Amino acid sequence: MEYWFTEEHSDNVRFSIRTNKQLASVETEIQRVDVFDTPEFGKILVMDGNVTMTEKDEFIYHDMIVHVPMAVNPNIKRVLVIGAGDGGTIRELCRYPMIESIDMVEIDEAVVDICKEHFKTTSYALNDPRVKIYFEDGLRFVRSNKKVYDLVLVDSTDPIGPSEGLFSREFYGNCFNALKDDGILVNQHESPYYDFNVKAIQKSIKRLREKFPIVKMYQAHIPTFSSGYWLFGFASKKYDPVKDLNEEAFNRLGLKTKYYNTDLHKGSFALPNYVKELLDYDIK
Amino acid sequence: MEYWFTEEHSDNVRFSIRTNKQLASVETEIQRVDVFDTPEFGKILVMDGNVTMTEKDEFIYHDMIVHVPMAVNPNIKRVLVIGAGDGGTIRELCRYPMIESIDMVEIDEAVVDICKEHFKTTSYALNDPRVKIYFEDGLRFVRSNKKVYDLVLVDSTDPIGPSEGLFSREFYGNCFNALKDDGILVNQHESPYYDFNVKAIQKSIKRLREKFPIVKMYQAHIPTFSSGYWLFGFASKKYDPVKDLNEEAFNRLGLKTKYYNTDLHKGSFALPNYVKELLDYDIK
Repeated sequence: MEYWFTEEHSDNVRFSIRTNKQLASVETEIQRVDVFDTPEFGKILVMDGNVTMTEKDEFIYHDMIVHVPMAVNPNIKRVLVIGAGDGGTIRELCRYPMIESIDMVEIDEAVVDICKEHFKTTSYALNDPRVKIYFEDGLRFVRSNKKVYDLVLVDSTDPIGPSEGLFSREFYGNCFNALKDDGILVNQHESPYYDFNVKAIQKSIKRLREKFPIVKMYQAHIPTFSSGYWLFGFASKKYDPVKDLNEEAFNRLGLKTKYYNTDLHKGSFALPNYVKELLDYDIK
Repeated sequence: MEYWFTEEHSDNVRFSIRTNKQLASVETEIQRVDVFDTPEFGKILVMDGNVTMTEKDEFIYHDMIVHVPMAVNPNIKRVLVIGAGDGGTIRELCRYPMIESIDMVEIDEAVVDICKEHFKTTSYALNDPRVKIYFEDGLRFVRSNKKVYDLVLVDSTDPIGPSEGLFSREFYGNCFNALKDDGILVNQHESPYYDFNVKAIQKSIKRLREKFPIVKMYQAHIPTFSSGYWLFGFASKKYDPVKDLNEEAFNRLGLKTKYYNTDLHKGSFALPNYVKELLDYDIK
């Protein structure tokens, strides 16, 4: 017997993963959540049919969403995380002794429950005493806070579906207000490879630029995500992510990382021309 | 009716592409070659079941195999290309006015015939008067030349199958001898993501290091290749690919490229820690 999970990367492209067993399948109030055990990627988390995390390559996504901003401003103390129910982003944040508090806002409590059961290598971090979890809509949560955070991380699902509001003008404006004067916002920004994603990315970066003086995109290779090529947005009131990278401070911490290093940090902002073009960068 | 082409990226991972029509299917003396027309990637070239080129993303591979060495040494005049039957590598080389001659050694004449018929946007370059095509075994061809080339490009298929010899100690030794004292060798080096590829990469880089004083790997995102994450090897007798990058000379040429730029050149050598580890690099 063969048993495969298939994700549609576009209408014309399918990515299929051999599975040993389905470990969970839950229709929450927000979305459908599945967990499979697979021979290639270990356990995988699937939300509304999209792979959102695998045990094999979650380190790539979590290294890149966390260590890039942390290596730019080594004085980050208060962090707001939107989404991140699997705990991976929280795990990486908790490795920094200077972080004093992490507010995590996850709209779907069921995701946290499922991850606590099936993904202990990421979800254990949710028990860190610095972490406070709010089960509510990130869009609403961020409205009520002014100039309190050093860093906002938006670890959301795709802009089509429950996370749509997390790519909106209103949300970015509220994040701007919730950040201190040297605050940084980082959000996952989809793949620029398939045409149907490109428009969402362009709209989102335009909105970020309306609000933040510094907006740069950076890239990572995440093989189990659509096209394997992923962008993150870095928006800041003060710091340039490459010029202000504090290599010495990061390396002094001695954090062992499986993907991130400070050379790769700089390289990840060097985008291919076709991506610069769609993001409306100057191309030299 | 639905009609799909499926490639096995590993025993446990399948990548499927919707097809409009099969345009060719030939059993040559060397391998099976198929051409499909597809809605997502345009025409795709498949060799022994592996996608080796698509109209949509061939620019990534061809930019990265050609412009990286050309931007390091702007005085390259004589080039040897092994493989490259589709013509894409030759097309990019022919954009450099300083190149005087290109010897192309393709073991399978049928590949060139098929590409001339179906992939005119790459194969037209094969008619450039500087190009001389030899239909023979690259392994044998390279034995007979001493210190004649400025650059050797190995644009081969995978190390398992007809191209196995192109990753051997003997082949690298002969390439070293065929290169001038400031010669550069660049070869496609597979994806480091799936375990079964890792051993072949490790063996190959070890052999390159036995022969060349400077050996560095660099990366690109090629979504239609296995894992989407691809490595190239840069081996040289004299030039460091980053320290000796001649940005000014490259940018003075004014070549419009869809993937490559000199910032990305530097970034492409900044590898993730898990790759540095498997390549036995120092990790700071």
